[in-house]
Amino acid sequence: MNPPATLPTARDKLLFTPGPLTTSLSVKQAMLRDAGSWHADFNAIVRWVREKILQLAELSREAGWEAILLQGSGTFGVESVFATCVPPDGKVAILANGAYGERMVLMLQHLKINHVVFRTAENIPSDPIALDQALAADKTITHVALVHCETTTGILNPIEQAGAVVKRYGRSYVVDAMSTFGAIPVDITRAGIDYLVSSANKCIEGVPGFCFVVCRRDALMACEGYARSLSLDLLDQLKGFEKNGRFRYTPPTHSILAFAQALQELDQEGGVLARGARYRHNHDLLVRGMRELGFRPYLNPEVQSYIITSFHFPDHPAFTFDEFYRRLSDKGFIIYPGKISQANTFRIGSIGRIFSADIEALLAAVRSVLREMGVALGPL
Amino acid sequence: MNPPATLPTARDKLLFTPGPLTTSLSVKQAMLRDAGSWHADFNAIVRWVREKILQLAELSREAGWEAILLQGSGTFGVESVFATCVPPDGKVAILANGAYGERMVLMLQHLKINHVVFRTAENIPSDPIALDQALAADKTITHVALVHCETTTGILNPIEQAGAVVKRYGRSYVVDAMSTFGAIPVDITRAGIDYLVSSANKCIEGVPGFCFVVCRRDALMACEGYARSLSLDLLDQLKGFEKNGRFRYTPPTHSILAFAQALQELDQEGGVLARGARYRHNHDLLVRGMRELGFRPYLNPEVQSYIITSFHFPDHPAFTFDEFYRRLSDKGFIIYPGKISQANTFRIGSIGRIFSADIEALLAAVRSVLREMGVALGPL
Repeated sequence: MNPPATLPTARDKLLFTPGPLTTSLSVKQAMLRDAGSWHADFNAIVRWVREKILQLAELSREAGWEAILLQGSGTFGVESVFATCVPPDGKVAILANGAYGERMVLMLQHLKINHVVFRTAENIPSDPIALDQALAADKTITHVALVHCETTTGILNPIEQAGAVVKRYGRSYVVDAMSTFGAIPVDITRAGIDYLVSSANKCIEGVPGFCFVVCRRDALMACEGYARSLSLDLLDQLKGFEKNGRFRYTPPTHSILAFAQALQELDQEGGVLARGARYRHNHDLLVRGMRELGFRPYLNPEVQSYIITSFHFPDHPAFTFDEFYRRLSDKGFIIYPGKISQANTFRIGSIGRIFSADIEALLAAVRSVLREMGVALGPL
Repeated sequence: MNPPATLPTARDKLLFTPGPLTTSLSVKQAMLRDAGSWHADFNAIVRWVREKILQLAELSREAGWEAILLQGSGTFGVESVFATCVPPDGKVAILANGAYGERMVLMLQHLKINHVVFRTAENIPSDPIALDQALAADKTITHVALVHCETTTGILNPIEQAGAVVKRYGRSYVVDAMSTFGAIPVDITRAGIDYLVSSANKCIEGVPGFCFVVCRRDALMACEGYARSLSLDLLDQLKGFEKNGRFRYTPPTHSILAFAQALQELDQEGGVLARGARYRHNHDLLVRGMRELGFRPYLNPEVQSYIITSFHFPDHPAFTFDEFYRRLSDKGFIIYPGKISQANTFRIGSIGRIFSADIEALLAAVRSVLREMGVALGPL
């Protein structure tokens, strides 16, 4: 039974990925407890976490909003919205420009929900004008869904402009804010978002294990009887919390304790704006440094998020991504392969417990690796 | 934003529940690492965990078996089997005698899968003879499903006898072994089980975050195109592992590191038999002690598992469960409310990082609480 079931004993490598991310030691230490999943002490934490998520979203239960935690990865959360909230005769329009938009299409295929896809190229933001025409032309579309930051490339989609269109036509609006919630402020009410989905292990800097959906209580309550899966039944999940404060099914207790700690550390950092500023600074340092080393970002700066950045493979015969990745990993830096169909790229995330000194250390390692590989690039 | 988002600072209470359980400190400490979810180091651990689960089941990939990890609680795993493996014209027979059997019925209702339920009372094991008659009478039944240990009561169902019947009629056999796998040995091949589901936070003594399905590779591969949910698509999950060793969607990396440690500690304890012996000893001590204090177990001993035990509320005017629970909790012991419709009971689990000294401490606390409450009971 080899290899051994442990990570290397060396210090953890830093994660420059879209998540799971490098987290603080104190967040991980919060998991050194075993909580009773039905006990009042744990229920109080769940309640606090749910309220705190709404507070981060600048919403409240009093104003009719709920934050619903769901076991599983963020994908489970997005699918739970479709599985629970689209009526049997509903039709979903997906605005897609990357793997996560395409994943929504796969969900709808599996759930046998009628849908239509409006694609833009992976380096082009979703198009609110095309959406406007589509909604005008097709009155059977009940829901519109898109991804805020497509980490496929790092592109930022215009969720407020698209939301204004959706609102004007009176349709429901689903936003996958997986990799932005907690770091890029969104005015959910103004953007007209009905369902926003994010996950524990992104910009809140918790560990994986669950996701959450922020939604209007009355909209969700109107979806009684639609759910196409028990595990992914978001309405029943809310009813469970309201009945006795508990998860319907075993919650990832340790992940939730970590998340509660992470929420407090987000406050200590200064909230969403401060966190976003740190990530933006990480991103700016990264792009400047990589350009100096001769790497070219895939996206135009005006559509590029500060969450994750795609870089073209350098045009040099000695460069192979596998060797580049492995040598960086050996030095303690984990970057991310590309996911783009039309271009050879790799990705570097700027989120998580990562500071400017870490970006500088990464850049120094990239410089060394290029030298070791004999890849001579000029600054761009 | 009160109450504070932390557990009480006192030592963790011991969990006498069906899970999440009290785990070892070393299992929790394994979570003090941040792993890259796509990195080779983490993939190697996932591969090791999957092989190790098969080894525990006394199966192997060479013999055509797979262990597939899935994000979410055990319920997600059971539903993933139905959602993925029952053909569109399939029909599932559920043998139910508790909440987890009834939950299977809810899943099939949500998934719109044809089904039939054969119920026995909550204190009566599922009936292989009735199953025999049912399968003889209804040739459209394609799958039979039941729960090994119904933690609703703690009853153990006759999965080998039922399996022999299922096999004779050539149907597929799904067993929810959530709370037994790793502590009650099962000969999966002899019992004719096609799909066995369990979870990280039960008898392997890991922490919650994922579940796993043990199944025949060729049977699962024959289910192409059936999946009714993307997140719960077990076949696609297997394909993901086979394509590049990764989870399709973000895995609970920390839970998996904890599970790898827990698997090693299970080996150190002496494997499934040794763990089962410890749990049985816990259970025997518990029942003897509770009887001496005047509590009556709900089930007959011959159908009672050593996983969790239901006790009747004592027939005394000063006893209320809420006060009993709260006072035990204040002393550091978390027991479990009942889930039975026909009887007023509570439950005490004997699984997790719990030893005979813990059972004795719990019994001493129960004795004190009864005295504090003025509940005088004679030994049974």
